[in-house]
Amino acid sequence: MTGMFISFEGIDGSGKSTQARLLAEALVARGMDVIHTREPGGSTGAEEIRKLVLEGDPDRWSAETEILLFTAARRDHLEKTIRPALDAGKVVICDRFADSTRVFQGATRGDLRAKVDRLHDEMIGIEPDLTLLFDMDPKVGLARAKGRQTVEERFEDFGADFQARCRAAFLNLARANARFQIIDAGRAMDIVAADVIEIVTRHLP
Amino acid sequence: MTGMFISFEGIDGSGKSTQARLLAEALVARGMDVIHTREPGGSTGAEEIRKLVLEGDPDRWSAETEILLFTAARRDHLEKTIRPALDAGKVVICDRFADSTRVFQGATRGDLRAKVDRLHDEMIGIEPDLTLLFDMDPKVGLARAKGRQTVEERFEDFGADFQARCRAAFLNLARANARFQIIDAGRAMDIVAADVIEIVTRHLP
Repeated sequence: MTGMFISFEGIDGSGKSTQARLLAEALVARGMDVIHTREPGGSTGAEEIRKLVLEGDPDRWSAETEILLFTAARRDHLEKTIRPALDAGKVVICDRFADSTRVFQGATRGDLRAKVDRLHDEMIGIEPDLTLLFDMDPKVGLARAKGRQTVEERFEDFGADFQARCRAAFLNLARANARFQIIDAGRAMDIVAADVIEIVTRHLP
Repeated sequence: MTGMFISFEGIDGSGKSTQARLLAEALVARGMDVIHTREPGGSTGAEEIRKLVLEGDPDRWSAETEILLFTAARRDHLEKTIRPALDAGKVVICDRFADSTRVFQGATRGDLRAKVDRLHDEMIGIEPDLTLLFDMDPKVGLARAKGRQTVEERFEDFGADFQARCRAAFLNLARANARFQIIDAGRAMDIVAADVIEIVTRHLP
């Protein structure tokens, strides 16, 4: 029995974390076995690597070292959390996965995009069965994100221009990969949530 | 002006760390600009990754995650310590480099050897100009290593059989790569040191 692997992607402030929680609650209410997790992190080792990358001076790691550390965290998350849950037939709802590395590194350092893909193919291999892209105007997302800024959320510091490039990169990925569903995240929370449940229900095995 | 990159490799207890220090002292005495460093570690970030990998339960990381973390540490070490020193024309003496990952992972998990190489080519790229392999009977090395065991030296715990496989793997690497020089490390320390200086002097640019 194999479960279903759903990733939630989008720029900061797109509401995807709230929507991931709402979906998890809705599926549990239906009696389904659900794991709600997030990246970077999602396993004990990966959370330690997350701290190493996201705390301290943001410039202390190069983009290349950061990609290696994120991939190490993802490998641990996959082995300890995602794969066992899928093998047990559970639905895995993951707030960010490899597409975030593709987009956030690719948007800052275009020459690294191919490296991220090769590293993923070599050391991770798996892609989600379904990826929900929460798409919205970066200006709105940025305003939302700034309202709840924590010490870790440094990607948001790059500003509206960076977020606009990330939005475009996410949309390019979505157009190139059939596992993506684009969701208009600029609408009211309950309308977006209904949309999410409808799409996920349609894709359940 | 480009410096020279010399790595010291060998099983635990082969005396390579002592010999690296003796060579550094000898070259400094000749008025040369020398950096003496070691792996895993060798830069502030890499030392933090070293702690993450080597402290705690030895089984908490899979071999794949370990390779990614070691490669992340190596990338930081290369960027922050090795490359700047070479660009400044210095001699870099490095106690362990990528060959240790090739051997220690390859000896424990044969199917990972090709992954280690591809990851190295993708994210590190550089090889030493000269690699000194301190070769000796693993039983002698193990007895030496046990005399100074620290909490970090967990590779030694695998025992004599593991060390014998590592010795063979190092010798195979040496036969396949012209940058290697094999040194009989079972002899007296001062005789080995004289050998090291003679070989390095012959290879200096």
